[in-house]
Amino acid sequence: MELLDLIKSRKSIRKYKKQSITLEKIYSVLDAGRYAPSGANQQPWTYILVTDTTLKQQIRKEAEREETKYHKTAPSPLKEWFKKQGITPAKPFLTDAPALIVVASDTKAPYWLESTWISIAYILLQAENQKLGTLTYTPSDTAFLNKLLNIPNHYSLVAIIPIGYPAETPTTKTRPRKPLKQIVHHNKYSLK
Amino acid sequence: MELLDLIKSRKSIRKYKKQSITLEKIYSVLDAGRYAPSGANQQPWTYILVTDTTLKQQIRKEAEREETKYHKTAPSPLKEWFKKQGITPAKPFLTDAPALIVVASDTKAPYWLESTWISIAYILLQAENQKLGTLTYTPSDTAFLNKLLNIPNHYSLVAIIPIGYPAETPTTKTRPRKPLKQIVHHNKYSLK
Repeated sequence: MELLDLIKSRKSIRKYKKQSITLEKIYSVLDAGRYAPSGANQQPWTYILVTDTTLKQQIRKEAEREETKYHKTAPSPLKEWFKKQGITPAKPFLTDAPALIVVASDTKAPYWLESTWISIAYILLQAENQKLGTLTYTPSDTAFLNKLLNIPNHYSLVAIIPIGYPAETPTTKTRPRKPLKQIVHHNKYSLK
Repeated sequence: MELLDLIKSRKSIRKYKKQSITLEKIYSVLDAGRYAPSGANQQPWTYILVTDTTLKQQIRKEAEREETKYHKTAPSPLKEWFKKQGITPAKPFLTDAPALIVVASDTKAPYWLESTWISIAYILLQAENQKLGTLTYTPSDTAFLNKLLNIPNHYSLVAIIPIGYPAETPTTKTRPRKPLKQIVHHNKYSLK
């Protein structure tokens, strides 16, 4: 496996097959996450693996309620992007995916947010390596998840990662990347 | 290459050989970074590749000045960890490493910080894949870098990643990870 190919082939997945995934596969994905570097090696992340149908439905219902509020007040460029991409407050992936990895992080740890996003990136890549689709989704308000999942208040919900076999095949055409020459500067930043 | 092995073998490197690295290798590392997913596909990251000796010295000098201030006021647990790990305000890796990847991010983009840390994680792994050592280092105050590198004010400095051949071989023993059973919860968070 060539890492760069893996990185380039990974695409965010919004449509999932109902097909379940083995716990072994999920654990190998979480195993990748726990090896992320972290501020003062505090490993602030916690993974709550949600597979219970009722719980997934509750999460979806509350997330969609927050999104409906958020879509009304989002800044214009984001609203336009939502429209172009067909993104609405509906979050079917929260119930369609066989599992949700709810990632929370201990806000008492130094660089907890930064460290946890490295952990999430490792999770995304190891999932792709297992041919599993993922998405990083953070509800516009997350307090409901602390309540619903009994997460202590000093943990902040960082992302929900639905994981499962993809039921869509997005291409780089739909998510083109800026060329390197546009984003790399030598020694000092210069307008391009 | 087995991704999980690569992830587990990667360790933060604080000591670098002066040996230079080819631009081709650095570009393959940055190429990985640009394929990270990002909020609304805005790709908010910018990479400033600093190889100029004088500039590296200036960065080190100003960073050490900030660190000296910070170490005096850091919270006690962090101070203890610094002591245990032998971390002082001295940042020799900023001049020893043949190159610094200065990662800045456009704060006008949605989820700019989160997206950029995924990009950084991809950079760390592709560097490891090329047998290059890296570290993620964020000075306690970063405004000096905007000034020094002409970075526009709406870009925030996210991290400096020194990159080069490792002159030390840290092991997992020095950075043990929590076992999965300690950090994974099923359906709801429960005290362990």
